[in-house]
Amino acid sequence: MKLIEGGVCAAKGFKASGIHCGIRKNHSKKDLALIVSDVPASGAAVYTQNLVKGAPLEVTKKHLANGKAKALICNSGNANTCNANGIEIAEAMCELTAKALGTEPGDILVASTGVIGQPLDIDPIQAGIGPLVSSLSSSGSSDACEGIMTTDTKKKEIAVEFELNGKICHLGGIAKGSGMIHPNMATMLVFLTTDAAVSPSMLQKALSTDIQNTFNMISVDGDTSTNDMVVLLANGLSGNKEITEDGEDFKVFMKALNTVTVHLCRAIAGDGEGATKLLECTVSGAKDLQTAKTVAKSVISSSLTKAAMFGADANWGRVLCAIGYSGADVDVKSVGVSFKSEAGCIEVCRNGSGVPFSEEFASEILSKEEIDILVTLGEGNACASAWGCDLTYEYVKINGDYRT
Amino acid sequence: MKLIEGGVCAAKGFKASGIHCGIRKNHSKKDLALIVSDVPASGAAVYTQNLVKGAPLEVTKKHLANGKAKALICNSGNANTCNANGIEIAEAMCELTAKALGTEPGDILVASTGVIGQPLDIDPIQAGIGPLVSSLSSSGSSDACEGIMTTDTKKKEIAVEFELNGKICHLGGIAKGSGMIHPNMATMLVFLTTDAAVSPSMLQKALSTDIQNTFNMISVDGDTSTNDMVVLLANGLSGNKEITEDGEDFKVFMKALNTVTVHLCRAIAGDGEGATKLLECTVSGAKDLQTAKTVAKSVISSSLTKAAMFGADANWGRVLCAIGYSGADVDVKSVGVSFKSEAGCIEVCRNGSGVPFSEEFASEILSKEEIDILVTLGEGNACASAWGCDLTYEYVKINGDYRT
Repeated sequence: MKLIEGGVCAAKGFKASGIHCGIRKNHSKKDLALIVSDVPASGAAVYTQNLVKGAPLEVTKKHLANGKAKALICNSGNANTCNANGIEIAEAMCELTAKALGTEPGDILVASTGVIGQPLDIDPIQAGIGPLVSSLSSSGSSDACEGIMTTDTKKKEIAVEFELNGKICHLGGIAKGSGMIHPNMATMLVFLTTDAAVSPSMLQKALSTDIQNTFNMISVDGDTSTNDMVVLLANGLSGNKEITEDGEDFKVFMKALNTVTVHLCRAIAGDGEGATKLLECTVSGAKDLQTAKTVAKSVISSSLTKAAMFGADANWGRVLCAIGYSGADVDVKSVGVSFKSEAGCIEVCRNGSGVPFSEEFASEILSKEEIDILVTLGEGNACASAWGCDLTYEYVKINGDYRT
Repeated sequence: MKLIEGGVCAAKGFKASGIHCGIRKNHSKKDLALIVSDVPASGAAVYTQNLVKGAPLEVTKKHLANGKAKALICNSGNANTCNANGIEIAEAMCELTAKALGTEPGDILVASTGVIGQPLDIDPIQAGIGPLVSSLSSSGSSDACEGIMTTDTKKKEIAVEFELNGKICHLGGIAKGSGMIHPNMATMLVFLTTDAAVSPSMLQKALSTDIQNTFNMISVDGDTSTNDMVVLLANGLSGNKEITEDGEDFKVFMKALNTVTVHLCRAIAGDGEGATKLLECTVSGAKDLQTAKTVAKSVISSSLTKAAMFGADANWGRVLCAIGYSGADVDVKSVGVSFKSEAGCIEVCRNGSGVPFSEEFASEILSKEEIDILVTLGEGNACASAWGCDLTYEYVKINGDYRT
């Protein structure tokens, strides 16, 4: 497995583009993105479990009912959610795109991100669709990535190269994260493409399985978005024998997918709104997987732990507290906690009680940009990781006045 | 029902005191508090549901097993939680108090609040117990209130006068709140006293019932503390016929209790760490009480809604979002949202979609110190309220470096 450049265009036969069409007032920010496969692709998607769902999700779900898609259009700057005419606008986005590409609206998937509850004007999209299509290119992943960003400060792009029965395959993706990140069964916006041949049902199985341990294990602020969506398109242009069942090929494909999704998870968590640090909580010694996941996610979601990490304060009592209220059935008397970063590792709690440690060294460890919170439960062999970020002044600043 | 002064000393036969004994380095901050009844009192308590529990909670539970107590000692500056010798120290606090008061350790309840996981030294408490007892006074509620404060900026005290079969009764309390506030079945530290005569079982029933709609409906930061405790002592000195069963007297007593607890809830939420505003979310039109409570608490706990309120930004989409991920089964197409304060009331969402409104007037409403978020679900007659506060830079500052 090799990391490569190219994002969503790393796979053969995928082109992408991103432009400013005028949904956002700020002309320097792109607000419309397009990803197109040269040939029809198998498609899989997972969606937010929030009962309030963006209109684009409903339209995408409908268009993906046959397991096939050819392109995806996404705007930022407006979530097209909680609007009386949301479905109509989302359908119109597909129709405009299909017409420009010479295909059917049912082949187009659609996504939106931005403020909720403000009508989305179709006019700038209608005007922008021509330039968007004409700028499609096999090096357009980065532009598309910019087109879906909201308060993200960094582009989130990655791709890998791998082999399936002698054929070189590629899988890459782009993501937008930042705020309202606490996925539940689905997640923020992530668009993945591959030239591997995978049947729609196996593609869906791969995606639905993978997100349980990746995107569902991130939290930036505990708020599950209305517009979360992960889409994976597989156009088969690498020429491998189509994956239609479990087996060695599916395992290799799952590994490639997981490499890309874990990278994007870390990128999303580390670029959480206002974040200065990426936090990873790894729980081991759990009696079962669910316990490990519940504990890891509770620690990563605790406002008090997040604020302590911002301050490089080894206040491990807050980690214990978050374990205790997580809802998982753990024996608190056997919990251990260590903090780790590139500066080193320090044990701060054993058997549920504090152990003497150097505050100075702990502070040095916690001053780095990537912090591992290692929790041992001493009750079994299951383990899990979750990703989050610190809580900072900047998070409050960004969200105190998001709409202006 | 009349609001009166006096806090935990408003009821006949209760004295209190608070001093600085040296647990805290800062000499200007009191760190030890005592509340004593002249005669043995019925006692009731509720405790945190966090699996990690402070040692004082276990000792208090044991001492209250007979439904009777005479005094309560509480220190701030150290939670006496996750320490190998926690129980021993909590027992020692009771022994020292009992000896100084000339009673038995089993008559003493104990509580602690502050940092978790640092050993609590008994020496300053041992040295302080003499001055603490000798300064007991019927005007000592305010000193005791100061003794239990951590990052609180305001004292939280209240009392009411009411009548039970011709006898004037009093019920009052003090509370400490601020951070790690997201009670689950029990809550932060709240000490309540009354001179009404109530049997231990009815006292427990009153308290356990009341907190479901009061302290369990507050959230400052989503973190359920390890040391939450509410204690209610009833010494019977008002001379009323002891309440031993349901009926008119119990109703009057419940009303008095609820008046005091709602006041303290609002005080705790409004003085949440870093808060500039008290938020109250009132949900009406729910199909059942649990739905109303789940929705109200989800809105009040949403970091994004809290940050928007800090910025006086009428970003109602975040309220819808928090309703959607609350876990309650609601029809999002019939949800309505209005914002209200002393400046007026404005409707921003009807039937799940936005309605045109004046941003200027909305901003004026949201600039006040007490904001009501009114949610209508249009599915029934149940309603509930929850209390919280805005999310501010100051919260991050306080918690980025709490221990130093």
